[in-house]
Amino acid sequence: MSNRRDFIKTAGVLTGASILFNTAPLLANENFKKTAKGKFKLRFRPYTLNLKHVFTLSTSSRSTTPVVLTELEYDGIIGYGEASMPPYLGESHESVLKFLSKIDLSSFDDPFEMENILGYVDQIETGNKAAKASVDIALHDLVGKIMKQPWYKIWGYDPSKTPSTSFTIGIDTPEVIRQKVKETDIYKILKVKLGRDTDKMMIETIRQITDKPICVDINQGWTDKQFALDMAFWLHERGIVFIEQAMPKERIDDNAWLTERSPIPTIGDEAVQRLDDVLKAHKVYSGINIKLMKCTGMREAHKMVTLAKALGMKVMIGCMTETSCAISAASQLSPMADWADLDGALLISNDVYKGMEVHNGKVTLNTLPGIGVRKI
Amino acid sequence: MSNRRDFIKTAGVLTGASILFNTAPLLANENFKKTAKGKFKLRFRPYTLNLKHVFTLSTSSRSTTPVVLTELEYDGIIGYGEASMPPYLGESHESVLKFLSKIDLSSFDDPFEMENILGYVDQIETGNKAAKASVDIALHDLVGKIMKQPWYKIWGYDPSKTPSTSFTIGIDTPEVIRQKVKETDIYKILKVKLGRDTDKMMIETIRQITDKPICVDINQGWTDKQFALDMAFWLHERGIVFIEQAMPKERIDDNAWLTERSPIPTIGDEAVQRLDDVLKAHKVYSGINIKLMKCTGMREAHKMVTLAKALGMKVMIGCMTETSCAISAASQLSPMADWADLDGALLISNDVYKGMEVHNGKVTLNTLPGIGVRKI
Repeated sequence: MSNRRDFIKTAGVLTGASILFNTAPLLANENFKKTAKGKFKLRFRPYTLNLKHVFTLSTSSRSTTPVVLTELEYDGIIGYGEASMPPYLGESHESVLKFLSKIDLSSFDDPFEMENILGYVDQIETGNKAAKASVDIALHDLVGKIMKQPWYKIWGYDPSKTPSTSFTIGIDTPEVIRQKVKETDIYKILKVKLGRDTDKMMIETIRQITDKPICVDINQGWTDKQFALDMAFWLHERGIVFIEQAMPKERIDDNAWLTERSPIPTIGDEAVQRLDDVLKAHKVYSGINIKLMKCTGMREAHKMVTLAKALGMKVMIGCMTETSCAISAASQLSPMADWADLDGALLISNDVYKGMEVHNGKVTLNTLPGIGVRKI
Repeated sequence: MSNRRDFIKTAGVLTGASILFNTAPLLANENFKKTAKGKFKLRFRPYTLNLKHVFTLSTSSRSTTPVVLTELEYDGIIGYGEASMPPYLGESHESVLKFLSKIDLSSFDDPFEMENILGYVDQIETGNKAAKASVDIALHDLVGKIMKQPWYKIWGYDPSKTPSTSFTIGIDTPEVIRQKVKETDIYKILKVKLGRDTDKMMIETIRQITDKPICVDINQGWTDKQFALDMAFWLHERGIVFIEQAMPKERIDDNAWLTERSPIPTIGDEAVQRLDDVLKAHKVYSGINIKLMKCTGMREAHKMVTLAKALGMKVMIGCMTETSCAISAASQLSPMADWADLDGALLISNDVYKGMEVHNGKVTLNTLPGIGVRKI
C-alpha cells in the first residue's frame, strides 16, 4: 500500500476520463473493487535511470536516461509498463506525461480487446511511440496475468530458443575499451558502436583481447557507399557478424546497394520504426532491429516479427536503456529473434524491477506471467 | 466415457510413439492421470459429412465430404480438431489417417510450444495440409482451454467486429436458384459460384429476387483476361462486391492485369495456400481467401492475416464443408477479416459439434475457451 501511495503522489492517476492526484484512499483495494470493478486505472510516474558508464554514440554522450513507469489496473490485477526516452529520439518526461494524460479508457471494459484499445491509443496523436509502448507493455502484462501465462508461451515460442544478448561497448579510448571488454566476460557476443574515424582501431583493440563474435552498429555514421562496402569486407575478415544501419536511413538506394554486395548481413535500425517500415526495408537491409520504444510496443513488435520472417528477413530484438520492465517485455519475443541486444537494464544502476536475466550471456526467460517481472 | 470408448474403437490412439487400438481401459481417467501425466494423446477417426444439397462447382458435383475428427489430450484436457478433404484437393480418409499415424509427440512435454510442435508436424511430409490442420486446431483448442480463453480473445480481437458470412449458391437451374435464394433470407451477403456459360443468367436470376450484396467465385473458370475484365465491370454494375479467383492461378500476369483494372476487388483463393503465397499474391490480387485446410491451421492462418494486413491486402476467411469444429476454429480469426465465407457447417445435415453460430447472417462468437465448441 505504501508503494502505491508513493506512486500516486509523484504522478497521475487516470480512471476513466478523469485525472486524479493524491487520491490514495479512493484506491484502497476494498473500495476500489466495489466502485470500479471492470474498469481500467492507468497510473504513471517519471523516473530517471542512472547509467553505470557514460554512454557514447556517434552523435552524443550521456549518463542518465529519462523513463516513465506505468501501471494499468483492472479488476485488482496490475500490469507494469515503461517508456524510455533517449533524448535524441524526441520524447521526454514532459511529452510522455502529457500524452498519457490524454488517454481515456472509460469506453473499454475488456482488457482482451487489445487491438481496439491499442488502436485507440495509437490514434490519439502521431509519434509518442515510447509513451504508447508504456501502455502496450502494461496491457500485455495485465492480460498475461489474467491468463496466468508469460507472453512467450501465449505466442507459442520455445523459451530455450532465446539468443545470447550482445553487450554494447561504446566509442572510447583503447585503455577504456580493453577494460570494458574484460568486464564483459560472460557475454558471447559484443556490440561495438562505430561510425567515427576510430573504427578500425576499436575493432583491432578488441580483437587483441578476444575472438568473440562482434556485431557493429554504425548509427548512420558512414556516408560513402564504397567506403561502407570496403569496411564490410574488412569487418567480415575479422569475424564481425552483421552491420547495423551503416548509412543514413534516407539513402535507400545506397543501403540496398550495400546489402546486395556485403559479405555479412545488414540490419536496419533507424530506418525501421514501425510495422509499415518492414516492407520498405525488404531488399534494402538483410534484417531489422525491432525495439518496443520505436514501434509502440509488444503487439506491433510481434506483427513485425511475423512479417519479417515471412519476408525471409533476419530479426534482431533491441532496446534503449530501460529497466527490467521494458527489457523483459522485449525478451518475450526473443525466441524468434536471430540476435538480441537486450543489455539495457544491465547498463543502469537503479533498476526497479526484477525480470528477464542474462545467464552465461543468454537471454533467460522466467515463468512469471505477463511480461515476467516483479517490483524490487 | 461411452463416447470416448466409441471414438477409440473406430479409430487410432497415439500415445507417444505407439498406436493403440481398443485400449479404452488404459485411458480411463483415473489411470490416465497417473500413467501419462503431461504427455500428449492424439486420437482420430474418419467421418463422412452429408450435404443438404448436392454441391456443384465449375468442375465437379458431390453430396458428401470425408472428414477426420481429431482429439488431442494433455493432462486430462481434450482439444478438438478436424480435417476436411474435398476430393479435388487430393487428401482422403486414407491419406489423413496415414499421416496422423506418423505423428510422434513423445519428445514434447508442453502444449504451449506451438511453434515447435506444429513445425515438427509440418516437416513430417509435404502436403497433407488438412491433416496438419486437424492437429493445429486440436492443439489450439487444448491451449485455449488451458488458458480458459477463446482464441479471438488471446489474439486481442473484438468479437463484435465479425463480418456477416456469405452463403453459397451453387451453379443450378433458374428454378432451383430462385428457391435457394428464398431459403437464404437471413444472410446479408450471397456467394455465387460462376465460371460456366450461365454466369450472367445466374446473376440476373438472383437480382430479380434480391438486391443483397453478392460475391462471386469463379474457381479459375475464366480463361480470357479481357472477358474477365468485361465481366468485372458488368458485375460491378450489378452490385457484386468482389471476384474470387477469376482465372487459373498460374496466370499470374493476367490476374495482376485484371486486379489493376477491375472496379471491384479480386481475391486469390487457389493461388494462395500458405504463408509463402501471401507475398506472391501482393499486387496480383486485392486480397486473399484464407482457409484452415489450405494453410495447415490456425497458427499459419493468423500469420497470414497479419502479413496480408501489413501488405494492405483484403482478407477473407473461407472454409470447406466442415463440421462446426473447423468452422468455429476459423471464425476465431474473423474479427480481422473483411469478409467471411463460413457457411460450411450450415451445408451439412450431420454436424457433431455445436460452436460458432450465424445470427442474422453475422458470424457470432461464443465465450467458450479454445476454438469455442462442444460435442453435440
